[in-house]
Amino acid sequence: MAAEGVLYRNFNELPAQAKLSQLALNPLDLSRPGVVNPERIANYRASGGGFDLLFFGQRLDERALAALQELADESQAVRQFAAMRQGAVLNLIEGFASENRQVLHCSCRDVFSKMPVEPKSAEQAKTELAKLRCFLMELADGRLSAPNGEPFTGMIQVGIGGSDLGPRALYLALKAYARPDRVVKFISNVDPDDAAAVLGELDLARTLVNVVSKSGATLETLANEELARQAYRRAGLKPEDYFVAVTGQGSPMDNPRNYLRSFYLFDYVGGRYSATSMVGLVMLGFALGYEGALAILRGAWRMDGAALEPEIGKNPALLLALLGIWNRNFLNYESLAVLPYSQALTRFVAHLQQLDMESNGKSITRQGQELAWQSGPIVWGEPGTNGQHSFYQLLHQGTGLAPVEFIGFRQNQYAQDLVLQDTTAQEKLLANLLAQSLALALGQTDANPNRRFPGNRPSSILLTDRLTPESMGALLALYEAKVVFQGFVWNINSFDQEGVQLGKTLASRLLAHYAARRRKQPAPADPLAQALLAAAKLV
Amino acid sequence: MAAEGVLYRNFNELPAQAKLSQLALNPLDLSRPGVVNPERIANYRASGGGFDLLFFGQRLDERALAALQELADESQAVRQFAAMRQGAVLNLIEGFASENRQVLHCSCRDVFSKMPVEPKSAEQAKTELAKLRCFLMELADGRLSAPNGEPFTGMIQVGIGGSDLGPRALYLALKAYARPDRVVKFISNVDPDDAAAVLGELDLARTLVNVVSKSGATLETLANEELARQAYRRAGLKPEDYFVAVTGQGSPMDNPRNYLRSFYLFDYVGGRYSATSMVGLVMLGFALGYEGALAILRGAWRMDGAALEPEIGKNPALLLALLGIWNRNFLNYESLAVLPYSQALTRFVAHLQQLDMESNGKSITRQGQELAWQSGPIVWGEPGTNGQHSFYQLLHQGTGLAPVEFIGFRQNQYAQDLVLQDTTAQEKLLANLLAQSLALALGQTDANPNRRFPGNRPSSILLTDRLTPESMGALLALYEAKVVFQGFVWNINSFDQEGVQLGKTLASRLLAHYAARRRKQPAPADPLAQALLAAAKLV
Repeated sequence: MAAEGVLYRNFNELPAQAKLSQLALNPLDLSRPGVVNPERIANYRASGGGFDLLFFGQRLDERALAALQELADESQAVRQFAAMRQGAVLNLIEGFASENRQVLHCSCRDVFSKMPVEPKSAEQAKTELAKLRCFLMELADGRLSAPNGEPFTGMIQVGIGGSDLGPRALYLALKAYARPDRVVKFISNVDPDDAAAVLGELDLARTLVNVVSKSGATLETLANEELARQAYRRAGLKPEDYFVAVTGQGSPMDNPRNYLRSFYLFDYVGGRYSATSMVGLVMLGFALGYEGALAILRGAWRMDGAALEPEIGKNPALLLALLGIWNRNFLNYESLAVLPYSQALTRFVAHLQQLDMESNGKSITRQGQELAWQSGPIVWGEPGTNGQHSFYQLLHQGTGLAPVEFIGFRQNQYAQDLVLQDTTAQEKLLANLLAQSLALALGQTDANPNRRFPGNRPSSILLTDRLTPESMGALLALYEAKVVFQGFVWNINSFDQEGVQLGKTLASRLLAHYAARRRKQPAPADPLAQALLAAAKLV
Repeated sequence: MAAEGVLYRNFNELPAQAKLSQLALNPLDLSRPGVVNPERIANYRASGGGFDLLFFGQRLDERALAALQELADESQAVRQFAAMRQGAVLNLIEGFASENRQVLHCSCRDVFSKMPVEPKSAEQAKTELAKLRCFLMELADGRLSAPNGEPFTGMIQVGIGGSDLGPRALYLALKAYARPDRVVKFISNVDPDDAAAVLGELDLARTLVNVVSKSGATLETLANEELARQAYRRAGLKPEDYFVAVTGQGSPMDNPRNYLRSFYLFDYVGGRYSATSMVGLVMLGFALGYEGALAILRGAWRMDGAALEPEIGKNPALLLALLGIWNRNFLNYESLAVLPYSQALTRFVAHLQQLDMESNGKSITRQGQELAWQSGPIVWGEPGTNGQHSFYQLLHQGTGLAPVEFIGFRQNQYAQDLVLQDTTAQEKLLANLLAQSLALALGQTDANPNRRFPGNRPSSILLTDRLTPESMGALLALYEAKVVFQGFVWNINSFDQEGVQLGKTLASRLLAHYAARRRKQPAPADPLAQALLAAAKLV
């Protein structure tokens, strides 16, 4: 099904684009006295899906904001989002060989209403959830236990890219809510030391291994799976009693002889959008219990609903997308720093790097034409106050700079806290977050040039009450929607990743040399590969 | 002592700068057929301090390379480095209030020769090392044990910024060599959840707490220390039997009533350069043993020696610095991706972010004048092949891009590996690293626009045999020297961090509101702070 009634328009053909270009010639200067005032702070705010977005710290006024709303309307960003949820084939490049797939990650969480938006995929999601529920019940009530009769207390997730980054970020974010009797570890890198370190940390006799690969043929994952199977065999354990597969139906991994269970994922859910599919949920269900996993879905589902709101004041994902476009295409900032003031979000930015840069690091339109405008920024960042004692120096006083998205929570996850100098640690954390946003905007004059801050450096603040499974699901969905909205406005395909292929091809040329050596065959005639291996002192 | 005989010259007054600007009008196109050939791959290579730097993937030819050597010579970068090691007061802004300190982190490892470069600081380093050696021997032979008679098996490092990032990166990098009976955890963020999670993971009765703060007054560290002390008291344990201090002599923390031991650090070692001082070594010595800690110092010391080599072909730190300047100031790339092909280096880039961005994210010269040229880039990155399944899409096909520094090791740390499809995991890792560098340079043409790669994207490869304590020390020192060299060429002070002050000042304005509320006093008259707290729904 095509995106019915949606017209793809090029970014530089949208009337609002020209208007914004004009406005960007003279953008708001946040460091001018009085610009950042109580009224602006109160008014530059949007709410939806449980999150508040404060954006007084962006370099725009009411006119630019109105033009951004027009940009959203003219590009039909929300309408494309709705079409995506309904099953439009949006993963394509028109007129060229491409993946030609639907984009239905939202269906993974469209399991709460009687009338799902795209019934077939929502039904498939429900089926997998029901399988997961059974699996988790059997683990909980002891019907399914380790061969030694003990309950399973550990899980190792083996996956790479989207099968690792999003799930890992969510697990670490929600560890405070994990069952105290269960622990999860991850193996992702093809680095054999990664596997060795993790396999050495757990009691394998009580540990499940969750192998995640859509194709069932991801080389890194197969290598790590095999390292894990060897470790189990060395420990006198049969891998098939411990290994679980999350894979495409009918893939080489969909084989009950090798796995305790198979959970399915579908080609309409891309890797970087798959955290709320079985890719993330099997592991998260094991750690948090079924209700915890479901709470993540509920939060994401609510945010998906908020993302359908055409008015930017009620749609934080859309507004965040547009502010990003303002900074990238009109004010020409190349990168974006995402700075969560929560240690639990320690790997969330690594997930966002994939989500954003793999989706929108593109140079052609959905019609295969070279872009005449910038697409996705470089995304980077680290949690909160540790960053303040690190790279914030450059954010405040560098010759370069990056717009910032702060993420904060009004309360902390654990009950533990203490009052020192009349404030709690959580209050210090929040005060620092808000203060950084102000400092970036206002700057400071001083007779000592080293104590001058230029200010006028853009930032936004995303806030909600507490980091819980539900709000984590909402935050995940918020960024998914943000990235997708930007792709729609830029008229690019945010759902493929052809840019990873060339490296793979060239790696196989180099591996052919290693393989030939191992087989005691002559090296392939490939002067470039030979020179490179020699220069690296690898032959 | 001033930097004798060294003349600080502005970057834009160096003759080589003008020459490089000319050459940069027409930089080498790496994607042109034949440019990246076996000869270039063999020749564009530098070695020193145990590392090889392959830079065939940089957009420069012999002329530009010669001009970079001239830039190094004209700026007296190596001579300034030597003056730094000899104790020149390089942490200053001439004519303005500034820290006015020597910069002697290299003295921390200048403990192997009979004639140290700066005897006084090297003597202090030796004294602290001797104290550490005694402490570690007492722990090992049981003279010093936990009050319950058991050996100490855990250590929690409490610190922030440089007291966390560098030490943590090194510990994770070298975990493969850690004593199997000892584990280290870290608390850094002011987020109370961070402390709660770590304190819940260890048997406190057998765990030391290493509190690191030069001033003894770092608010975040004091708050986390107090959270830790409370946890010990709740567990019926006396904190003073478990807590160790790393601090300045005479600081509020230098108090035997509160700490089992005090180790000293000195004001001539900046936080981000302090990993080889007691800031890192107490914890690393606990984990690796004294010999392991000493091996780190030896590697760093050797690299410090290599950094004195004026010829760029023999000084990888200097060459890396100059290639960075070529990319930043002449080819105008704003950020730098550091991509280690080793999971053990998982936090090394977080350390580099502080080291580089806090050192060189500056806008004034050492004479207090506004820079008319760019200074330090934004630094970001993640380990190896997981990144390939993530943000590499943008590196290859984005409209923006970032120069890359790859880091690789010829052998892996653990003995475990396996052959799959005729190659080991370590071989796959290396093949991927080399292939990515080639792919970025060469690009690819294709009839399908989505499979086109523009190429001509710069990268370098740093290689050594294996990630060991010694090579880790060398890698650490290599990047320290790189950053310092860049600061010398840009004529900036790479050793202060005034840019962190404004955020602190503004945070205290917000904290005043919280404190007033707790004391049931009226809120301070501060409309901006009030508006911000209200907009964030925090009052």
